[in-house]
Amino acid sequence: MVDIATRVWNHKWKIDPIVRSLIDTDFYKLLMCQSVFRNKPDTQVTFSLINRSKHVPLAHLIDEGELREQLDHIRSLSLSRGESTWMRGNTFYGKRQMFTPEFMDWFETLRLPPYHLERRGDQYELTFEGSWPEVMLWEIPALAVLMELRGRAVLNSMGRFELQVLYARAMTKLWEKIERLRMHDGLRVADFGTRRRHSFLWQDWCVQAMGEGLAGAFAGTSNCLIAKNRDLEAIGTNAHELPMVYSALATDDNALAQAPYDVLSDWQEEHDGNLRVILPDTYGTQGFLDNAPDWLAGWTGIRIDSGDPAAGAETAIDWWKQRGEDPRDKLVIFSDGLDADKIIELHTQFADRVRVSFGWGTMLTNDFKGLTKDDRLAPFSLVCKAVSADGRATVKLSDNPNKAMGPDDEIERYKRVFGVGAQDAQAVIV
Amino acid sequence: MVDIATRVWNHKWKIDPIVRSLIDTDFYKLLMCQSVFRNKPDTQVTFSLINRSKHVPLAHLIDEGELREQLDHIRSLSLSRGESTWMRGNTFYGKRQMFTPEFMDWFETLRLPPYHLERRGDQYELTFEGSWPEVMLWEIPALAVLMELRGRAVLNSMGRFELQVLYARAMTKLWEKIERLRMHDGLRVADFGTRRRHSFLWQDWCVQAMGEGLAGAFAGTSNCLIAKNRDLEAIGTNAHELPMVYSALATDDNALAQAPYDVLSDWQEEHDGNLRVILPDTYGTQGFLDNAPDWLAGWTGIRIDSGDPAAGAETAIDWWKQRGEDPRDKLVIFSDGLDADKIIELHTQFADRVRVSFGWGTMLTNDFKGLTKDDRLAPFSLVCKAVSADGRATVKLSDNPNKAMGPDDEIERYKRVFGVGAQDAQAVIV
Repeated sequence: MVDIATRVWNHKWKIDPIVRSLIDTDFYKLLMCQSVFRNKPDTQVTFSLINRSKHVPLAHLIDEGELREQLDHIRSLSLSRGESTWMRGNTFYGKRQMFTPEFMDWFETLRLPPYHLERRGDQYELTFEGSWPEVMLWEIPALAVLMELRGRAVLNSMGRFELQVLYARAMTKLWEKIERLRMHDGLRVADFGTRRRHSFLWQDWCVQAMGEGLAGAFAGTSNCLIAKNRDLEAIGTNAHELPMVYSALATDDNALAQAPYDVLSDWQEEHDGNLRVILPDTYGTQGFLDNAPDWLAGWTGIRIDSGDPAAGAETAIDWWKQRGEDPRDKLVIFSDGLDADKIIELHTQFADRVRVSFGWGTMLTNDFKGLTKDDRLAPFSLVCKAVSADGRATVKLSDNPNKAMGPDDEIERYKRVFGVGAQDAQAVIV
Repeated sequence: MVDIATRVWNHKWKIDPIVRSLIDTDFYKLLMCQSVFRNKPDTQVTFSLINRSKHVPLAHLIDEGELREQLDHIRSLSLSRGESTWMRGNTFYGKRQMFTPEFMDWFETLRLPPYHLERRGDQYELTFEGSWPEVMLWEIPALAVLMELRGRAVLNSMGRFELQVLYARAMTKLWEKIERLRMHDGLRVADFGTRRRHSFLWQDWCVQAMGEGLAGAFAGTSNCLIAKNRDLEAIGTNAHELPMVYSALATDDNALAQAPYDVLSDWQEEHDGNLRVILPDTYGTQGFLDNAPDWLAGWTGIRIDSGDPAAGAETAIDWWKQRGEDPRDKLVIFSDGLDADKIIELHTQFADRVRVSFGWGTMLTNDFKGLTKDDRLAPFSLVCKAVSADGRATVKLSDNPNKAMGPDDEIERYKRVFGVGAQDAQAVIV
């Protein structure tokens, strides 16, 4: 029986909104937002969309009016009562009241700041300017909107059964990965795929399928809305934007060399246990660890997000040993360019030597590769990054020169200050 | 929004009925039923279920109580007003009033006669006795119920996402066949898969997917309910049960030799055009055609339902030529053991020499082969046949000795009367 009221109601929507909640974002964004709200609330930042996949002509595929409607819709969102209750009441990593009353009071009144959108040839220039804790929350929804609008542009010409078979193929593809993964005991895999997901509904399906198929090996999702709706653990720690902005704010080379450790010193005041995870690669992992203060060796884990992941894990294990720590008590989180086979390979290689966990992203929530003519739904590399702070350009080096960002002279300066030598280049696909 | 009334209503069903309509059956059953109603209304027949796949222990898999509930539900069905209107008002093969007012008056009051069910080891003995026009209508729903209950027994232990992926895989499998088929111009393919379908909903999906994917190459469905619901052409002509029962009723060898032609003589009084299709293989195609009266050569087509299909088509083409007919005006319908590759092969081989059409059955609506552990959903060979008429055993020889049915001495007598010599055996899979 058709629910007539529902159908009429659905027809009243002017658009089909892609992002419908302020917590349809990665959990670490909220953790970092609280940290920034506490430590650097007045820093003025600019975030900018960067399409690393120039062969995907976003401005050609996506109508500017539709993009504006989606972005405007996000600006109309505010935290709902239920979302606030979930954030205030939930247990994260076994800890209650992860979010302070001060932060929640602020977050409950927040609306996202304006955006600046301009077409430049076949690409869009999309930037966000304002105070750091507000602007930073644009990153994930902006990426999700662009990824999903690009998908809709492709899906628009497909028949009803053709569409169903497309999703059938994508489901089968994911399920076969899950079947491979569950053959390996002791795996821990979480969904990290919000930012480059095919769509919200598809991410929601993927997460639920992981829950059924992997059972205990499924650790949870980085997406707060899905974690809330599906009663799952919200997963995440921190990201490059913290050291990038802290470093941009440094007034001289000495302060710059210290900035990445200042980030973690601030973080340590707020978090313990599984949230004490080092992301060491912003300006080169080896130098970061060599120069790290001893208290960092007591942290729980290291996240490997660029460079060759096995080499990164070996570096982490060696460092812990040098600092007198037992790697078997430590956690390595792999989160860069993972797919099922890579997860299995790394798990097999490291599970006996260190606690291992995986943040599976794009190839979990957007593996439509090979499923359409001309591969027009294949995932591509879109990021939204802090490009300046208080008027000073940010820089990222990472362990892969293809992921480096920033003005050339600043990149050279950072390389000098952080003692980064030659790096192996790795292709950036997603 | 949940439609509460619908949900409550659904909970009131004591069972989930598999067959919900008297026209959830093959169109040719209704055509033959009308013919029998006109020509042999008082013949007493017994139909019996025969599981040719002894390795599928139906009585072990299917609960007897559930089977009885489904069969009892079928006995509670009667023709609805809308179904009657569709039968009375529809155009079949361009002809109006395919069903006479006398037949419709009778059919509108019909309820199916009792069944006899007994467990014998791992199999069920399921028989139907009574007047031919009533009993014959049990064949398709009885098969559909057993196929679907067997499927439910397997599906019962599967998880929600595991189920969705199962259907995703089945959809992908069918769609890939459709993609292969639509590369060939001039194909005509119809759904003949009611009797051994995985389930009603699955057949309905397959038919709709064919409609979208094959477009003009899709000829329609043999299933009347789906044809009605989806506004498609209902497809079919006649089957072996007519010559089998007519032959069983023959009182001597001369009458027996004549019986298969009597069937078509009766048929010719009722039907013309595309419904004048010869099914020549009941007692051997070659002998049937050699001895056929000349008026049969004027019929529109021949259906090839056993033996090597290419050899059968060559036999038909040769026969038309011998009788002075141009095969390019004639129709060959292939309907035995087809799958996409076979369809393409036969189409490529014969499309230039004769009009060709395909009735695609089990491998359209039940290709779950390879999709579950131990292949427990693979299709198997179940039939429901007239085994006696007015107390006399029926016989079928066909062009494949593995499909022969009847008492041994009667098989020998029929072989002698119809001049059937050595036959090539073909594996019967579905």
